[in-house]
Amino acid sequence: MQLSTRLTNLNGGGSDGWEVFLRAREMIAAGDTVIELTIGEHDIRTDPSILAAMEASARGGHTGYATVPGIPALRDAVAARVQARTGVRTGRANVLITPGGQAALFMTHHATCPEGARALFIDPYYATYPGTIRGVGAVPVPVRTHAADGFRPRAADIDALADGAASLLINSPNNPTGAVYDRATLEGIATVCHDRDLWLISDEVYDTQVWQGDHLSPRALPGMARRTLVIGSMSKSHAMTGSRIGWIVGPAEVISHLSALATVTTYGVPGFVQDAALFALGSGLEDQIAAPFRRRRALAQDILARQNTVGLIPAEGAMYLMLDIRATGLDGRAFAFALLDAEKIAVMPGESFGQSAAGHIRVAMTVADDAFADALGRLCAFAEGLAAGQG
Amino acid sequence: MQLSTRLTNLNGGGSDGWEVFLRAREMIAAGDTVIELTIGEHDIRTDPSILAAMEASARGGHTGYATVPGIPALRDAVAARVQARTGVRTGRANVLITPGGQAALFMTHHATCPEGARALFIDPYYATYPGTIRGVGAVPVPVRTHAADGFRPRAADIDALADGAASLLINSPNNPTGAVYDRATLEGIATVCHDRDLWLISDEVYDTQVWQGDHLSPRALPGMARRTLVIGSMSKSHAMTGSRIGWIVGPAEVISHLSALATVTTYGVPGFVQDAALFALGSGLEDQIAAPFRRRRALAQDILARQNTVGLIPAEGAMYLMLDIRATGLDGRAFAFALLDAEKIAVMPGESFGQSAAGHIRVAMTVADDAFADALGRLCAFAEGLAAGQG
Repeated sequence: MQLSTRLTNLNGGGSDGWEVFLRAREMIAAGDTVIELTIGEHDIRTDPSILAAMEASARGGHTGYATVPGIPALRDAVAARVQARTGVRTGRANVLITPGGQAALFMTHHATCPEGARALFIDPYYATYPGTIRGVGAVPVPVRTHAADGFRPRAADIDALADGAASLLINSPNNPTGAVYDRATLEGIATVCHDRDLWLISDEVYDTQVWQGDHLSPRALPGMARRTLVIGSMSKSHAMTGSRIGWIVGPAEVISHLSALATVTTYGVPGFVQDAALFALGSGLEDQIAAPFRRRRALAQDILARQNTVGLIPAEGAMYLMLDIRATGLDGRAFAFALLDAEKIAVMPGESFGQSAAGHIRVAMTVADDAFADALGRLCAFAEGLAAGQG
Repeated sequence: MQLSTRLTNLNGGGSDGWEVFLRAREMIAAGDTVIELTIGEHDIRTDPSILAAMEASARGGHTGYATVPGIPALRDAVAARVQARTGVRTGRANVLITPGGQAALFMTHHATCPEGARALFIDPYYATYPGTIRGVGAVPVPVRTHAADGFRPRAADIDALADGAASLLINSPNNPTGAVYDRATLEGIATVCHDRDLWLISDEVYDTQVWQGDHLSPRALPGMARRTLVIGSMSKSHAMTGSRIGWIVGPAEVISHLSALATVTTYGVPGFVQDAALFALGSGLEDQIAAPFRRRRALAQDILARQNTVGLIPAEGAMYLMLDIRATGLDGRAFAFALLDAEKIAVMPGESFGQSAAGHIRVAMTVADDAFADALGRLCAFAEGLAAGQG
């Protein structure tokens, strides 16, 4: 009577990188006022119009089992959205509705990685990626990137790790770095996927948060639709994090198999949540929900331009800034703890997201503009003080 | 670039046993009036008071990420419910909130069955069981039961299949048979679990639907709490099928690991759905929601007592009747198709639930009393006609 090792090894042992976040939560619980710039959650709630759509659906009787791959109208709406954004012909049969983007990450790796396979992903990475891969019994293999490249991966670095790999997971716009992969980067990735016969799992949950350039989905590149599984979600685009609704877009045959997997993993998504998502996709709220992050990113660029201690990794998308604090002489973790103690500002150490972002911190742009600008100014002054003490 | 075999083999090949159900749906879509006695869904919707609690939660701002193992108040309420019903000391640390009972089935097998392990379950069985087990890469092994035993399993039959097995899945009150396992049956199961060092996964989602005797959870038997994972759900007890909310109750250490699994499989359950469930658990609605099935089961007993062709397996719980139609000379599948064509009454063939219930049909008691009594009367008359033609 033992537990499966894919379960007991899920967290990989060692620190999970969330110590600063937990310390901040403890301080708040003890009555401290802490500016939280840690997690990717909007400072607004789900829009009342979306909640009204959910209520109308539930009161109208959509409280029984919903069809497992998703209600047809929502699958059609997602297909239309994806086709409009990528130019790739996409229909209902290419769409599976999932209980959030995280479920889509799990299911796509379950589908593509047999027990023991290597699953590649780009470092720095969203916190759940390695555990998701371990959870399907596969071996997580991070592909290092470099601050000098804006944390975009090099094709040769992916290729060098591809022996025995089944899949590659990418995320653009990127959490935690804010990078938006350009065409050349994606073409390099596509070439490796072709050459090494990899599935490409493309996490595009930040596709409505692009501040510079355009979002390009690798599914739109020549020959890539057949080997690409795109993950989408209503969480970030429509401030519906708590509703747990997202999707997988891919080849119809894969979606059919994934629908069978959805039957046994969750038996579908609440019908009233699906109806709310259907309303939200047609609501035109996306730009309004992205606007505060666009404004705050511009504020941050101004504030950071006034000093030379803290470096800003080009922030082209997503709701985060990745800041280089190596001039302070501290690593990201030590800096984050020091900043929390001294200034009551909580940020995530770069080390929480892998090794590539050591010496950096991630700042979520998730508090009101004035408080955000004030916190960022104090953060810079604190870093300058440390750097001066260094000299 | 292949799909994992645990995905592509998930459905096990061959018929999925849902042909009669699908034919009925096609007839309805074509305009036919069909009495549907197929699936386990109430003929009422989720109660407006529960929906009001959900709306108040969402409007009150509970639309962001909820803590992954479940909100503390709901975990406490589930623990109190389980402790009150079983007498086993149960606290928050023993409870994980899941997006429905199906997710709990998947997660408990993921936790207990390494790739390639044998996972036992009782035949006849709920339709998703074998696929759930294949979905975690394990090997589904049905344990046959017998109509003469009321489809309760014999300990010796379990033991005979236990070599190399990691887990045993049971379900009392049972879908599809209506059996409620008595103490002797459960003690026999417990002994095999001890002797063969098996995890016991106990699907108790029908625990509020007991018409005769009492529901006994195997977790309450001596020494069994440490090796038993109990699955519960709001679907059947509170007519919340579409809300997708349930739980796993087990040892704290296992729940802790399962919480990590919940982080990577779905990242929790919507907070507003959890608040709705919390309200529902305190609402006292359980008896009211179970009452129609209790009435219809009594109706069925009367109707079936008036004839000798169709046999009723003792229906002690759950929202189904298992009827023996072997006197008609047909198997369950042929009878169900013939009944659908002749009488426009849709039932599930016993063969849809494994081999043990061949020659039987499952009748869901999920239409209004008058229509139910009328359908059952016509079903008996139809069977009598077939049996007479036999003679």
